[in-house]
Amino acid sequence: MLRTHTCGELRMENAGQTVTLCGWVQRVREMGGLTFIDLRDRYGITQLVFNMEINPSLCEDARQLGREFVLSATGKIAERSNKNPKMETGDIEILVDRLTILNTSKIPPFTIEDNTDGGEELRMKYRYLDLRRNVNRKNLELRHRMAIETRNYLNNEKFLEIETPYMIKSTPEGARDFVVPSRMNPGQFYALPQSPQTFKQLLMVAGFDRYYQLVHCFRDEDLRADRQPEFTQIDCEMSFVTQEDILETFEGLAKQLFRSILKMEMENFPRLTYENAMRLYGSDKPDLRFGMQFVELNDVTKGKRFRVFDEAELIAGINVPGCGEYSRKQLDELTDFVKRPQVGATGLIYIRVSPEGTLRSSVDKFFTVPDLTAIISKFSAKPGDLILILAGKCHKTRSALCDLRLEMGTRLGLRKPGTFKPLWVIDFPLLEWDEETNRYYAKHHPFTAPVPGDITLVDQYLSGDQKADLEKVHANAYDLVINGVEIGGGSIRIHNKDLQKKMLTVLGFSDEDAASQFGFLMNAFEYGAPPHGGIAFGFDRWTTVFAGADSIRDFIAFPKNNAGRDVMIDSPAPIKEEQLKELNIRITI
Amino acid sequence: MLRTHTCGELRMENAGQTVTLCGWVQRVREMGGLTFIDLRDRYGITQLVFNMEINPSLCEDARQLGREFVLSATGKIAERSNKNPKMETGDIEILVDRLTILNTSKIPPFTIEDNTDGGEELRMKYRYLDLRRNVNRKNLELRHRMAIETRNYLNNEKFLEIETPYMIKSTPEGARDFVVPSRMNPGQFYALPQSPQTFKQLLMVAGFDRYYQLVHCFRDEDLRADRQPEFTQIDCEMSFVTQEDILETFEGLAKQLFRSILKMEMENFPRLTYENAMRLYGSDKPDLRFGMQFVELNDVTKGKRFRVFDEAELIAGINVPGCGEYSRKQLDELTDFVKRPQVGATGLIYIRVSPEGTLRSSVDKFFTVPDLTAIISKFSAKPGDLILILAGKCHKTRSALCDLRLEMGTRLGLRKPGTFKPLWVIDFPLLEWDEETNRYYAKHHPFTAPVPGDITLVDQYLSGDQKADLEKVHANAYDLVINGVEIGGGSIRIHNKDLQKKMLTVLGFSDEDAASQFGFLMNAFEYGAPPHGGIAFGFDRWTTVFAGADSIRDFIAFPKNNAGRDVMIDSPAPIKEEQLKELNIRITI
Repeated sequence: MLRTHTCGELRMENAGQTVTLCGWVQRVREMGGLTFIDLRDRYGITQLVFNMEINPSLCEDARQLGREFVLSATGKIAERSNKNPKMETGDIEILVDRLTILNTSKIPPFTIEDNTDGGEELRMKYRYLDLRRNVNRKNLELRHRMAIETRNYLNNEKFLEIETPYMIKSTPEGARDFVVPSRMNPGQFYALPQSPQTFKQLLMVAGFDRYYQLVHCFRDEDLRADRQPEFTQIDCEMSFVTQEDILETFEGLAKQLFRSILKMEMENFPRLTYENAMRLYGSDKPDLRFGMQFVELNDVTKGKRFRVFDEAELIAGINVPGCGEYSRKQLDELTDFVKRPQVGATGLIYIRVSPEGTLRSSVDKFFTVPDLTAIISKFSAKPGDLILILAGKCHKTRSALCDLRLEMGTRLGLRKPGTFKPLWVIDFPLLEWDEETNRYYAKHHPFTAPVPGDITLVDQYLSGDQKADLEKVHANAYDLVINGVEIGGGSIRIHNKDLQKKMLTVLGFSDEDAASQFGFLMNAFEYGAPPHGGIAFGFDRWTTVFAGADSIRDFIAFPKNNAGRDVMIDSPAPIKEEQLKELNIRITI
Repeated sequence: MLRTHTCGELRMENAGQTVTLCGWVQRVREMGGLTFIDLRDRYGITQLVFNMEINPSLCEDARQLGREFVLSATGKIAERSNKNPKMETGDIEILVDRLTILNTSKIPPFTIEDNTDGGEELRMKYRYLDLRRNVNRKNLELRHRMAIETRNYLNNEKFLEIETPYMIKSTPEGARDFVVPSRMNPGQFYALPQSPQTFKQLLMVAGFDRYYQLVHCFRDEDLRADRQPEFTQIDCEMSFVTQEDILETFEGLAKQLFRSILKMEMENFPRLTYENAMRLYGSDKPDLRFGMQFVELNDVTKGKRFRVFDEAELIAGINVPGCGEYSRKQLDELTDFVKRPQVGATGLIYIRVSPEGTLRSSVDKFFTVPDLTAIISKFSAKPGDLILILAGKCHKTRSALCDLRLEMGTRLGLRKPGTFKPLWVIDFPLLEWDEETNRYYAKHHPFTAPVPGDITLVDQYLSGDQKADLEKVHANAYDLVINGVEIGGGSIRIHNKDLQKKMLTVLGFSDEDAASQFGFLMNAFEYGAPPHGGIAFGFDRWTTVFAGADSIRDFIAFPKNNAGRDVMIDSPAPIKEEQLKELNIRITI
C-alpha cells in the first residue's frame, strides 16, 4: 500500500509513530509560520502540519497545493495543541517530513462540502466529484450495509440468491420494455426485465423453495423525480407458503434492517386492508407517523340545502389538532392548495373550534350550531382544533383529502425523518377497470392469485355474466409501506394452469398471445408447480426512506436524469453505421 | 407454512412426531400391501408409507400418483425396518394418514435423475425441470455459497459493493456491444456494459477507495461452449495500491474460497512471468497440475541436415514420463492429434527411451545415438520416457505443443478434478500487434498502466521512432489461473490524463474519438485521480472450476444456447410494430 494508515483511524495512542497517509487536499490554511492541510479519504480527515522554521522548502511546497490535489504525506504523529473534538482524529496531527504529489487537480467546478454551491446538473455531470461529498458517500455506504444485512437475513432463512438473466423477452403487460436487437437472430429482440417475475416463479417450479436476488430492473417510462429507468429490487419468492408466512418472513427482514441499520426495535407492524386504507387515509400507502384519519360525514351533512354536500358522493374531513385559530389567510392558502390541479378539489370547507369552544365555519349559512356540533363530535374535536372537509366523487375526494392530510402533517412537523411507521396493506383488489381502454388491468400483475372464495366471480364473468363485478375480486396481495412510501409488494401466485389461463383471458389476452408470451410459464405449471408466493422491495427507495430522504437518485451511484440521460458519460449516444447494419436495423428519424 | 418440516431434516430422534411434508413424487413403489413414495424437495428425500391393510383408500390414492406430482402428506414418523444408510433421512419413514395433491404433473419429457435420459436441447427447453435434478441444484447452491464467501471476505477487507449502471454507452474497443435504443432520445442508444471498467475507475476518482460488485457483463460475440452473451464478474478496484497489494488481497480471497468452499488450505500461489509461461507451457494459462515443461532444443538439433529442424524458428518438446513403450499406433494417433487444424502442427517427432535405455526415434536417419542422447539429456529423460518434439514458427509451435501437453496430461489422468493448482501470471505485454488491421491492440484494455520504465518506449514510438517495438512494453497486469483456466485478470490503471491520451493515440484513437468515448474519464483524471488498480474474476468460470466441471452453462440458472437463444422462453423474439415505431427504428431484413 502507498499508505500505512487511512485518514480516519489515528488517535492519541498512535502519537509518536511515523506514518504515511494518502488522500485529497480538503483545505490549506496558513497561520503564521505554520501551514495546515486537511487530508481527506473515505475514512476521515487528518490534519497535516508544515513548519516554515523547521522545513521551509517543504512548507513552501505545501502552500502551493490546491484543493483536491492527491498527496502522500509521511511524518510523525503529534498531539495537537488545539484539539478539535468534532473530528474523530481531532486530537492529533501529522508533522510532515515527506510529501509527494500523486496527482494534481484543476479547481473543482463546485465545492466538495456537505453544503455545496453546485447545481444539480453540474453535479450530475461531475458525478465523480459529487460522490466525494460526505453526504453522498454516506448514502452509498448505507446502501452497502443494507444489502449486507438483507443478504445475511435471507441467507439465514435458507433463501438462495440465484441470478436470473437480463436479456429476456418483451411482454406488453405492465410498463414499456427496453429492448435489445439481436445480431445473431436478425429482426428479433431481447427485452430487459421489468422484474424477474416469471423467472422466480420458474425457480419455484424447479424446486428451489426459497429464492432471492438483489437485481436491477428496467422500465422505459417517462420519468418523475423518484423514478429511474433502471432500479434495484430485493426480489424474493417462497414455496409451500400462505400469505401469513410471507408477511412474517419479510416483517422479520424489515425488523432486522431496523435493528441493525437504525438501532430500532420495532413492534409488530399493523395491518390495514386496502379498503380501510382508502377509507381512513385516501391512499394505499398511508403515512402513519401522524393521525388525522378521515371521518366520513354523509350522514350528518346531507339535506341542509348546501348543494356542494347534497350532490356529493362523499363528504369527508380531517381534524387538524391545534389549528383552530388559523387565520383567514392561512385558510385561503389551504383552499388554494386543494384547488391546485395536482390535488383537484373544487373547494375547502372548514370549521374552526376556538379555544373557548365556539364554532366558526365557512358554511355557517347552511349549518346551525347544532348541525356543526354534530359534525365536530364525529371528529371528537376539542377546543382549538380545525376541521377541514372536502366533498365530491368518492375516489377524487379521498385522493384530494389524502394530499391535504399530508400537507397538514408536513406543516405541523408531524412527518419526522427519524420516526418510522411501517404497516402492511392487505386485501388488495385483483383487478382495476380502465375506462380509457375499456378493459381490466391487473392491479398487481397477471400472476397474482385471487382469494379462493372470489374465483366464482371470475367464472361468472367468463361465462358471460355482465353483472359480475370483477373489481370486487380480492387478491392475496400485500404491500409494505413505511412513512407513506410503498417499500415493496407481493402476492400469492397462481400455480394452476387453468386459473392462469382464465386470468389472462380476463386481461384481454387471446389464447395465441397468452401462449406466445407466457406459454413457457403455463407449460411449467403442467409439471408440478408448487403453491408459491413472493414479494419484491424497491431497494433504492427503502434505502432512501431509511435515510429520511426523498430522492432515490441520491442513493444511486450513477443515476440518470429526467430525460433518461447519464450526463456524465453523455449517454445514450449515436452508434456507428456499421453497428446498425450488423443489427439489421435503421433509424427512422 | 404448508409443511412442518422439510424432506431433508427428519431423523430417528423425531420418531413418533406427527409431521406434514410437502414435495415432489420422485418414485412410487409397491411391495405387497405397502406403497412407498420418495418425496423430494430441495433439502432431501423422505420416504412415505401407505398400508393397504390400515387405510386401503388412501393407499389406493397413493398408487395413482405420478412422478413429479406435488403433495402435502401428514403422518407419524416411524423407524424403518429396512434402513437406507445412503440417505440422510434413511432411518425413518412417514406413516401417512392424510394426503393432499397440491398439483398434478404431466409425465416429464426426461427423467429427473442425476443421469438423465434428456438431451441438451430438451433440457434447455424445460430448464425448470432440468434444475430439479440434484446435480444442477448443487451447482447453483455452490454458486450461492461462493457469492456469500466472496462478499464476506471483501466486506471484511473494507470493500464497498457499489452498483454501476447497466445502460451505459457503446465503445468500439473490445468486443461487440449489445445496444438499447432510447425512446426518449430518438436515434440514440445505450449499450450494455462489457464490464464496469470505467465506472469502477470513476469510483476510485470519487474516493471510494475499495469497490467491488458481483455484476452481469454483456458481450455480443459468436458463442463457444464456454461463452455466454451475459456472464457474471466479481469486479474489484482499489486505490493507493501497488500490484503487490492487489495480488496479496485477492490471493487472500482465493485462499478464503478454497478454505471455506473446498476445505483446502492453499500454499502461497506461485508466480510466473508471461514470458516464462509461454516458454515453459506455451500458454498464459498453464495447467500446473502436472509437469511436462517445454524444453527448447534449438542448440542440440540444428545442423544435422534435418530440414524441418534446420528451417524452424523453434524446436521444442516435452518429456512424457512412462510412455516410452507407446506403440506405433499410439504415436500415429498423437501425430494425427497435432496435425488437426485446431492444433496446426505439420508433424510430430518422437524419441522413445526403452526400459533398457535404448533410444528409438522417428529421426534416426538424421540423428546419431550421441545426438539423441544429447537431446534426451536436456529433458533428464529416464528409461521408459517418451520425448515428443514439435518444430516451426515460435508462436505456433508453442501453441501446438501446449495442446499436446494438455492432451498427454489428460491421457495420463494427470488433470485430476479434485486437485487445484492456482498461479499468478504476471508481467504481461501491454500491447499486441495485429497483422490484419495493422495496428496495436491493448492486450488487457486501454486503461492498463505500462511498467513505468517502459514508458520511454511509448514516447519514442509517438515521436516517430519506427524501431520502437511496443510489443516490448510491459504492463502492470496479472491473471489468476487455476488448473489451466483463466479465473480473472487485472492491472494497475493509468491515472494520469496525458499518459492515458498517449495510450489511446497508440491504439489508433483520434483525439476526437478519444474525447467522445472516454472524455469523461480523461476529464475525471484532471480532478485528482488517485493511483489505483483492480481485478475482475469470471464468477461463472470460477464456480465451474471449483466444481471440477467444464461448462459454465451448468452453473447459470437460465443460460442461452450457442445461437444466443433462451429456448425455454423462446427469446429473442419479434416485437410489435408499435414498439419499433416508438423507438424510431425499422428492421432492414
